[in-house]
Amino acid sequence: MNRQELIAQIKAKKSLLCVGLDTDINKIPTHLLDCADPVFEFNKEIIDATHPFTVAYKPNTAFYESRGLEGWQSLERSIEYLNSEYPEVFTIADAKRGDIGNTSKMYAEAFLNQLDFDSVTVAPYMGEDSVKPFLEIQDKWTILLGLTSNKGAFDFQFIKDEKGKMLHQEVLDVACTWGNDENLMFVTGATKADQLQNIRKHAPSHFLLVPGVGAQGGSLEEVMKNGMIEDFGLLINSSRGIIYAGQGDNFAEVAGNKAQELQAQMADLMY
Amino acid sequence: MNRQELIAQIKAKKSLLCVGLDTDINKIPTHLLDCADPVFEFNKEIIDATHPFTVAYKPNTAFYESRGLEGWQSLERSIEYLNSEYPEVFTIADAKRGDIGNTSKMYAEAFLNQLDFDSVTVAPYMGEDSVKPFLEIQDKWTILLGLTSNKGAFDFQFIKDEKGKMLHQEVLDVACTWGNDENLMFVTGATKADQLQNIRKHAPSHFLLVPGVGAQGGSLEEVMKNGMIEDFGLLINSSRGIIYAGQGDNFAEVAGNKAQELQAQMADLMY
Repeated sequence: MNRQELIAQIKAKKSLLCVGLDTDINKIPTHLLDCADPVFEFNKEIIDATHPFTVAYKPNTAFYESRGLEGWQSLERSIEYLNSEYPEVFTIADAKRGDIGNTSKMYAEAFLNQLDFDSVTVAPYMGEDSVKPFLEIQDKWTILLGLTSNKGAFDFQFIKDEKGKMLHQEVLDVACTWGNDENLMFVTGATKADQLQNIRKHAPSHFLLVPGVGAQGGSLEEVMKNGMIEDFGLLINSSRGIIYAGQGDNFAEVAGNKAQELQAQMADLMY
Repeated sequence: MNRQELIAQIKAKKSLLCVGLDTDINKIPTHLLDCADPVFEFNKEIIDATHPFTVAYKPNTAFYESRGLEGWQSLERSIEYLNSEYPEVFTIADAKRGDIGNTSKMYAEAFLNQLDFDSVTVAPYMGEDSVKPFLEIQDKWTILLGLTSNKGAFDFQFIKDEKGKMLHQEVLDVACTWGNDENLMFVTGATKADQLQNIRKHAPSHFLLVPGVGAQGGSLEEVMKNGMIEDFGLLINSSRGIIYAGQGDNFAEVAGNKAQELQAQMADLMY
């Protein structure tokens, strides 16, 4: 999916919402456990109920890998379902991969070609040759970790170099020379919304994927006020706050309502 | 596996050799393609031929994920084979994972409990809570990226802070407060063997996993001269140089000979 298509969808739905499919088999409604693939069934119902308000879906691969073969199958089924039923939505493999060049190429092949996600999250520590193979795939996106939303972000990402520039700022600046705002986005932690203005100095036109609105505690208003640009340039993720909002037979309906609530707040702040 | 068991195996085999099972289905001998699971069959024969000279095996997960379900199955079969036939060898899931705490916990579960690897490689960018869940699993190891062997290592890992300390040195120092030399190792690129003395100042007693001897061009002698400590403290990896050394029906025998050659060089330098 290219930038124009993504923006068209954002405008059509008046939404920046990304729903994180961090589906934990121990947390889904028990009546689903009788299905052949409970995790896929859960995802399918969540997607059906939330898609009118949602521009992107982001399964985190850890939740699938932790169930081995079965989990990988649930992931395959979920992305196939998204691509066949809702080809207009933007899909993100939240995989945080990164390795030497020939190995990153394998990951790029796995997530962007074979599974056919629109994008994949990538860790920056190993530098250019670990990121480039993802950027080289046509009409696909690399979402590089910039400033993450967790406590551990303070361990290394704020280290200042001799000129006072912080590591995550250096990551943004350097990565902007590898890709452009048509194939590269950045993960930017919402719990540091006061940092967003600063991040926009380093990535003025790139889309930012903002995790942590909801369970991780970021403020939607602050994020949109500080991070939004002319053509929006934001995908704002909520995972647990939506997918586990309901626990009964009507869990999907409850999730749909939650998504609609967030979408309505977004629409207010967008226009 | 604990440190004492690892060292006992190193002494018994007089070897520091880790064989990287970066098995690419497009590069294995064509006669294997008739097998039900050619990649597993290849790994099995390589393991059988090399194990007398090898203390560790390291499948890189990218090579398996790029083949989807089938690939994941080959990975499962390979680690099951290692654990059942050669329980004395140290196993490394070269996965370079790392995410927020609850998600890293899922990866730790996937690789260290479910697949039952002895260790997993982890990326440091997201800091303490992204690494701790791996360290918390009893008798298992976290192998954190310190200084990698690729060209992109120069993009961020050598950034100096205000006091002149480089990022990879800070990663080593900080990580040494999270784990100890009984549950934490570091990836240290062999192509920078001149840096090893310096790394030993920051991680004097930790095991180092050194990739890049062979195809990536590091010198074995330099690595061992600068990195070895009293109880060795090194695992030295070779992937392509061993597993693709032969291409005929006797590929495993050729790989075994290559492994033996390296082991003999190591034994000379160990004692």
